[in-house]
Amino acid sequence: MEQTAATPSVNFETSPDQYQHWKLTIDGHVATLAMDVREDAGLRPHDYKLKLNSYDLGVDIELADILQRLRFEHPEVHAVVLTSLKPRIFCAGANIFMLGSSSHGFKVNFCKFTNETRLGMEDMSAHSGIKFLAAINGICAGGGYELALACDEIYLVDDGSASVGLPETPLLGVLPGTGGLTRVVDKRKVRRDLADDFSTLTEGVRGKRAVEGRFVDAAFPTSKFQEAVAKRAQELAAMSDRPTSGPGISLGPLSPAIKGDIIEYRYVKGRIDRAKRTCELTISAPDGPQPTTADAFVTAGDQSWAIRAFRELDDVLLRLRLNEPEIGTVIVRASGNPRAVLEVDESLHANREHWAVREIIGLIRRTLKRMDLTARSFFALIEPGNAFAGTLFELALAADRAYMIDHPDDDNTIQLSVMNGGAYPMSNGLSRLQVRFLGEPESVDHALAHDGPLDAQAALKAGLVFSAPDDIDWDDEVRMAIEARAAFSPDALTGMEANLRFAGPETLETKIFGRLTAWQNWIFQRPNAVGEKGALMTYGREGRPQFDFKRT
Amino acid sequence: MEQTAATPSVNFETSPDQYQHWKLTIDGHVATLAMDVREDAGLRPHDYKLKLNSYDLGVDIELADILQRLRFEHPEVHAVVLTSLKPRIFCAGANIFMLGSSSHGFKVNFCKFTNETRLGMEDMSAHSGIKFLAAINGICAGGGYELALACDEIYLVDDGSASVGLPETPLLGVLPGTGGLTRVVDKRKVRRDLADDFSTLTEGVRGKRAVEGRFVDAAFPTSKFQEAVAKRAQELAAMSDRPTSGPGISLGPLSPAIKGDIIEYRYVKGRIDRAKRTCELTISAPDGPQPTTADAFVTAGDQSWAIRAFRELDDVLLRLRLNEPEIGTVIVRASGNPRAVLEVDESLHANREHWAVREIIGLIRRTLKRMDLTARSFFALIEPGNAFAGTLFELALAADRAYMIDHPDDDNTIQLSVMNGGAYPMSNGLSRLQVRFLGEPESVDHALAHDGPLDAQAALKAGLVFSAPDDIDWDDEVRMAIEARAAFSPDALTGMEANLRFAGPETLETKIFGRLTAWQNWIFQRPNAVGEKGALMTYGREGRPQFDFKRT
Repeated sequence: MEQTAATPSVNFETSPDQYQHWKLTIDGHVATLAMDVREDAGLRPHDYKLKLNSYDLGVDIELADILQRLRFEHPEVHAVVLTSLKPRIFCAGANIFMLGSSSHGFKVNFCKFTNETRLGMEDMSAHSGIKFLAAINGICAGGGYELALACDEIYLVDDGSASVGLPETPLLGVLPGTGGLTRVVDKRKVRRDLADDFSTLTEGVRGKRAVEGRFVDAAFPTSKFQEAVAKRAQELAAMSDRPTSGPGISLGPLSPAIKGDIIEYRYVKGRIDRAKRTCELTISAPDGPQPTTADAFVTAGDQSWAIRAFRELDDVLLRLRLNEPEIGTVIVRASGNPRAVLEVDESLHANREHWAVREIIGLIRRTLKRMDLTARSFFALIEPGNAFAGTLFELALAADRAYMIDHPDDDNTIQLSVMNGGAYPMSNGLSRLQVRFLGEPESVDHALAHDGPLDAQAALKAGLVFSAPDDIDWDDEVRMAIEARAAFSPDALTGMEANLRFAGPETLETKIFGRLTAWQNWIFQRPNAVGEKGALMTYGREGRPQFDFKRT
Repeated sequence: MEQTAATPSVNFETSPDQYQHWKLTIDGHVATLAMDVREDAGLRPHDYKLKLNSYDLGVDIELADILQRLRFEHPEVHAVVLTSLKPRIFCAGANIFMLGSSSHGFKVNFCKFTNETRLGMEDMSAHSGIKFLAAINGICAGGGYELALACDEIYLVDDGSASVGLPETPLLGVLPGTGGLTRVVDKRKVRRDLADDFSTLTEGVRGKRAVEGRFVDAAFPTSKFQEAVAKRAQELAAMSDRPTSGPGISLGPLSPAIKGDIIEYRYVKGRIDRAKRTCELTISAPDGPQPTTADAFVTAGDQSWAIRAFRELDDVLLRLRLNEPEIGTVIVRASGNPRAVLEVDESLHANREHWAVREIIGLIRRTLKRMDLTARSFFALIEPGNAFAGTLFELALAADRAYMIDHPDDDNTIQLSVMNGGAYPMSNGLSRLQVRFLGEPESVDHALAHDGPLDAQAALKAGLVFSAPDDIDWDDEVRMAIEARAAFSPDALTGMEANLRFAGPETLETKIFGRLTAWQNWIFQRPNAVGEKGALMTYGREGRPQFDFKRT
């Protein structure tokens, strides 16, 4: 069943001058983001055409880039209208021929990225003061409607043709896997029987019926649609606490140097060992003066460590996911001067109400979530010269295990900061310390109350690291742990980590990655979807799907 | 990858005189339930031997039966000690050769049943006044430890050999799928790095280390183990509010009459249409006088409608799941006198504090949960002569859709009772009305406040049914809905329903069925587990597993 269409190595960096699929226009405080997908500009143009505003990973990488730039480069943008430039079509969802010809791993990681991007829109609404209004001016199906569902509000043109729908189950034998089912019942709180009916319609619902079912917030005849959208966009923009004008922070290219199996950014370095199936990932502490005021952060632009280091980390995590599927274990190190990290933390905390600093904290928060959700084993190694302090200690908390050498001669300490106290909640709404100490909440307070560094024994006692071998045992213990990990079934590890990392409450966000995605991944393995006669494979081709009707 | 070892039709009824794998002894208020699995008495004895107290579905059916009888037949039992009669082995978990030679659907439904049984133990602790103490007197691995995790407390003998462990990931390339990962981090609140390490050990942990990691509550040397267990069991029993002595309610055989594709119990009738892949399931209202006092419920024993009807419904749901995988849609009817159901509801509510009535309500609650978790589409049909009232209306609420005929001549009404107000919470802790009206909580109050019957239009307006066609449209609308359902991918429907049915909060229970089980089902489809060289297939045979190391 595994498809083998070769996917070219994916580059997650782009910029406005390279956009092919989206048109961004800014008018006062309202940005209009219009989808206009170029059919022949998919990532694998010989395998599929992106008809009817259907999308592939490349289209979504542009969207993610636009959102990131709206956050940082356009403080004057307070609301975004999402619409389409194609006549009578809003968006047909993820391209089926792309999905059908992609490997299982690519499908899963494509969905994960698109989910993160849509959750990023909700994150903007919740944290950045930027609201989203979907202005659906045509047929809006599957992933198209899921994109609309990620908006704060959905307006639909009532022209007898425009519709919203989730036709995946009846047409393709898979789930709407980008949060659709979850958002219909958990965000829009559609009644389950109405949602059940809706999710089995091939043609979706239009106009009044869409409003009555709560699938959209309002429907307007063509003659009044633009005006209603413009009016509501202004109202949404008026709710924002963003500044009325710039300057923003321009995001330049990261331009990593790639040499064989080494990728090197300014603060992040990755080195792949293919024989061991590991990646050694090192993130460096600031090596020069960093901004201490909000204005200085804006002036420093994308060159301040906090922005640059976490943009780089985000990029390398995405490359690992998509381009290096066989690299199962990531060995995480933080190096440099921990004091420099703690000083950045102080500045971030002191200026956290400022729009730009809020965005920097948001960037770090989303990058750490990306790490939580990356299906690779992470082992943090804490050695002399480490910079696992404050924000960088979150990397150790996000890791599946942290090993800290208990060295008799060399100083080796970690340190927490105020930023470990809740600035970077996980998808489930708790801080990584809270999740770690679910059974002993007092340990969170103890850890945060401790002022100053902790050596290996103190860190072990405080429950902050997994193991603290001495210098004699260190090499063997770490080597054996990494070798053992590399020998396990990668699937069992993925499932195990997805369960052990997310103790505690579940949220809409974790339900999308836990419940919805796990079921979708199951379906993406089933012959009824991906077999020769499966619904995903026969769609748009000759013949109808043939199902094995056994229920499980 | 689909295995085809024919599983004989499974019978879920058993009784003490037929037990082969468990020994129950009752001493005062403490029952000791000892596992002593007969190697050669598996459900498919030619395919596998149940060595080392490993279990198959038959062993678990006995366990579920024992638990049900403890609830009803033994009110004097206030605590249960779970232990093993095999020397140096507590339980090795689910039998691997059984799993390896079972179809995907059987694996999934086996795990679902065992999960429900273990959640039933926690339900007894929370609701029935019966606490569980696992007395681990030998090696306790995988499903064995998961059984212990379902107990309130876990005591381990510290003899240098007895251990607890979850070796599924390192040994079998699958997850501990019976709640193990979830309970380790969410119930016992083990730190995630310690849980990660624990879940990758083949040999488990012993004695002091098991206590320190919170994997067990206490460890005792052999010389003191029995005494410590006995003492703690007495303490747990002393917490109970169960009566000090009987009489209990004996559970006799259900003895359904099975003729071809019809199964008929006293109050439940199932009729399979193989061409349409449907099962028409009818549950009848009481047809004679029912108990109104707690004593009368005890005297009536297992013949009162509330017990009998829901035991029958439970049995038929389990048979459908395991024995009729191709029957995808269940058409649910309730027939008879709704007034008779409402009178039972009054009696249940009035006597709800009494141990026996509490157990009857619990039986209904668990059966309805079983329906929520059954991977079949349920359509309720509400026609003249229906008995969808109170407790039986929960069947309509549990269904994916309810159709109610709006008949001009015949009376056709539904009615709620106090029992719809929270007596039967779903796995997520909310009532079915609350989940239905997540977006409009006032509709819950309106529905419950309405005194008396509602006709089709009133029920539709109150949001209690999906559709109310008139008598002219009824046949076509219902027929087309059922035919459309039967044509969809069964896998997409399973995933869709698992997402749409459980809006709202998640609990340990829903995490086990949503997050954990969904991932396990995915792994159960992966070549790394079930392929020719997969870990589940090569275990205990020649050769080692060969993995495709690509992470997804």
